Amino acid sequence: MRIDFSNLLSDRVGEHGLDPGFIKEYESKIIDFHRDLVSKRKAGELPFLELPYQDVSRIISLAEEVRSSFDAFVVIGIGGSGLGNVMLQNALNPVFYNELPKEKRGPKFYVLDNVDPEKLSGLLNVIDLERTCFNVISKSGSTSETMANFLIIHNLLREKGVNGPKQIIITTDPEKGDLLAIAKEKGFRTLVVPPGVGGRFSVLTDVGLFPAAVAGLDIKALLQGAGEMDKHTSKELLSENPAYLLAITHYLLNRDKGKSISVLMPYSERLYSFADWYRQLWAESLGKDGKGQTPIKALGTVDQHSQIQLYNSGPNDKVITFLKVEEFASDFTLSNEFPGYKACGYFEGHKLSDILNSAQIGTTTALTKKQRPNMCITLNRITAQNIGKLIYLYEVATAFSGYLYEINPFDQPGVEDGKKAMYALLGREGYAEQADEVRKFASSEDGFVLEV
Amino acid sequence: MRIDFSNLLSDRVGEHGLDPGFIKEYESKIIDFHRDLVSKRKAGELPFLELPYQDVSRIISLAEEVRSSFDAFVVIGIGGSGLGNVMLQNALNPVFYNELPKEKRGPKFYVLDNVDPEKLSGLLNVIDLERTCFNVISKSGSTSETMANFLIIHNLLREKGVNGPKQIIITTDPEKGDLLAIAKEKGFRTLVVPPGVGGRFSVLTDVGLFPAAVAGLDIKALLQGAGEMDKHTSKELLSENPAYLLAITHYLLNRDKGKSISVLMPYSERLYSFADWYRQLWAESLGKDGKGQTPIKALGTVDQHSQIQLYNSGPNDKVITFLKVEEFASDFTLSNEFPGYKACGYFEGHKLSDILNSAQIGTTTALTKKQRPNMCITLNRITAQNIGKLIYLYEVATAFSGYLYEINPFDQPGVEDGKKAMYALLGREGYAEQADEVRKFASSEDGFVLEV
Repeated sequence: MRIDFSNLLSDRVGEHGLDPGFIKEYESKIIDFHRDLVSKRKAGELPFLELPYQDVSRIISLAEEVRSSFDAFVVIGIGGSGLGNVMLQNALNPVFYNELPKEKRGPKFYVLDNVDPEKLSGLLNVIDLERTCFNVISKSGSTSETMANFLIIHNLLREKGVNGPKQIIITTDPEKGDLLAIAKEKGFRTLVVPPGVGGRFSVLTDVGLFPAAVAGLDIKALLQGAGEMDKHTSKELLSENPAYLLAITHYLLNRDKGKSISVLMPYSERLYSFADWYRQLWAESLGKDGKGQTPIKALGTVDQHSQIQLYNSGPNDKVITFLKVEEFASDFTLSNEFPGYKACGYFEGHKLSDILNSAQIGTTTALTKKQRPNMCITLNRITAQNIGKLIYLYEVATAFSGYLYEINPFDQPGVEDGKKAMYALLGREGYAEQADEVRKFASSEDGFVLEV
Repeated sequence: MRIDFSNLLSDRVGEHGLDPGFIKEYESKIIDFHRDLVSKRKAGELPFLELPYQDVSRIISLAEEVRSSFDAFVVIGIGGSGLGNVMLQNALNPVFYNELPKEKRGPKFYVLDNVDPEKLSGLLNVIDLERTCFNVISKSGSTSETMANFLIIHNLLREKGVNGPKQIIITTDPEKGDLLAIAKEKGFRTLVVPPGVGGRFSVLTDVGLFPAAVAGLDIKALLQGAGEMDKHTSKELLSENPAYLLAITHYLLNRDKGKSISVLMPYSERLYSFADWYRQLWAESLGKDGKGQTPIKALGTVDQHSQIQLYNSGPNDKVITFLKVEEFASDFTLSNEFPGYKACGYFEGHKLSDILNSAQIGTTTALTKKQRPNMCITLNRITAQNIGKLIYLYEVATAFSGYLYEINPFDQPGVEDGKKAMYALLGREGYAEQADEVRKFASSEDGFVLEV
């Protein structure tokens, strides 16, 4: 994995870049943070850092059972209990996986996150309930969306008379919460979200690993990759630590150069969902006290025809990270089907991946020329090991960014108000007071409304 | 359709909102723009405005033929020749459409936009080439990605000996371009991108309508909805014109209140791709001369567990538009499967859509309380007519925003540099000079690179 920071520096992008002296300047300042992090880790306060070294034999055997017993597998989870699952599935299984003939894949794979009735009815149209395993994931054991979807599915299974306890697997806190109590009452098997690991840092726990194993992914290689990255992100020296460099370059570009937006732009369909996972990690960890960059996902080359005009010529308020792949699992060599036409001739003899990666270099070139800071992470191939490395890199970078912004990257107090207002609307006990706020802030009466 | 601007105003969000006096202030200023727009329209300079009134009989009969002759339909197009197709398909057909049993749908529907070899090989794994119709769409007739994918598909069809001219339909400029010439040479049937309509304004031309008709959508209702919106967006009075209000509120919030980011957040899975279509429209039209808001897509409730912490407590630099649906095509009423558990009891008797829409109101309430400007567009149902209205609304708002920002909303000069650099890398004749720029701005040599 190659991480190229060159185009973040002032010798490439002028006043919009960082003076290369920032490394010397911050090398000593950062050592205090580093040592604090190391001591917290030793005290067991950062358990997400130890996840590469867990035993996954129980996950693998349970996943084997599910793979051989069911035609479809549905994760019921949202946020940190959904985004990581989509990311691993999309990154490591073929595009259009669910449409492959049965003999070329494991159980069909779905994540039911939203409480959109049309998504749920769409799902029910394409699965056979009796041949489907549901993995209900909620750290707290009370997430509204997850509980609502679980209630409906449980009801449907009961009506069909097929809710054998083997068909539902619960992933939740090992000691508390309603979902754990329900699992015990009904005899559902349980997996664990380790208490000290927050939802958005949980993809390398049972939350992400079990569904990945059901999907046939190599979760040992995933953890091995994460462990390899741990060696790099444990280094004290800023110039050698990729997570610290990722964090501090973004922090300084935000603080000093007005780059309030951080774009993650993979040039790979399979890596697009990695950007969704990153969006949660970055936004929910760092968006506090009026601080935090707004993370955006974009996709190359598709968004060259949608967003690049803006990135290139709009406000210079972004730092862009490209994710790039050198060698694809399959490729095509172009021949010139239509000799004599300028629009095709230059493709002859090139691989399709050459066009993709040349487009990425073209975009970098154009952005850099216009002094738009950008960087690039290149994977030799998309493998479980490399995805494990990427995950760990971004998790450590996020945690470290908390130090720089002087905020706690592990909480999310800003989502509580909205939840309370929703509880009030649904008549949940103890939230009557919030109804006044709803009337005050969300009423259409006496408002400025157009009917068209 | 109800458009609620209330929470953009200062009486709801304090200093971060607009003084309601803006309407009086801008009412007269805007009349000049309006009259210019009207006279340009009369002179035929804004042909996208006349699209609701076209004859679609040929599209419909060609689509009927394709529907009855093929098992799969693949759009080969990118940007304005892809995003609108995905948007219409996702908005108006069921979620998981391609996985439905054959008797419950038309041909499987795909959009091949990217030049990612793994996407193409994934597609080839799940379609039967001989039973697939390809619609190659490029306004210029030379879009790199589209031509590359077309070349490969054409080659595969030729190798199989099945490239009957009926299997490929070309949508391009009616008078010029390599794709048109190739179509003539090979005897492919053609559809038209009207010369005066830019790619991102072309969803209501053959570009979007033909694939929509193949997917079984009611394109007459789509146009009818657009025509209905035309009545509203043709009004001279700012306070009555939803497109002008949409444009000017966003412009003023950007210029005067630092809202550099515009989030479009549907609370509906089916409307999520509408946000992708909007992203292109807004970014590519307005991202010029250092101006333009950065459009972001988000999805409720999923992104409540990912982005709302940031939107609520991060920098107050966003204006958020919710898209909401009152009545869904299907719904579920929740019963309490697990009496005695607090995490479920409050759902009893509620529909799943109540939870979804209560979550939206909860989010609005919380954001407004924190002085984050937001607005809401509510559809009674997701119908072709309502989608037509939405499309037309946003297109006129975008065109009108061009006046406000004093830029041309119909060009995209900022994408040329990247293309030229790509051509240089691929050895296209006439671009050798650009190779120097690539070496200067995109080289990893003598750069700041970490191998991990």
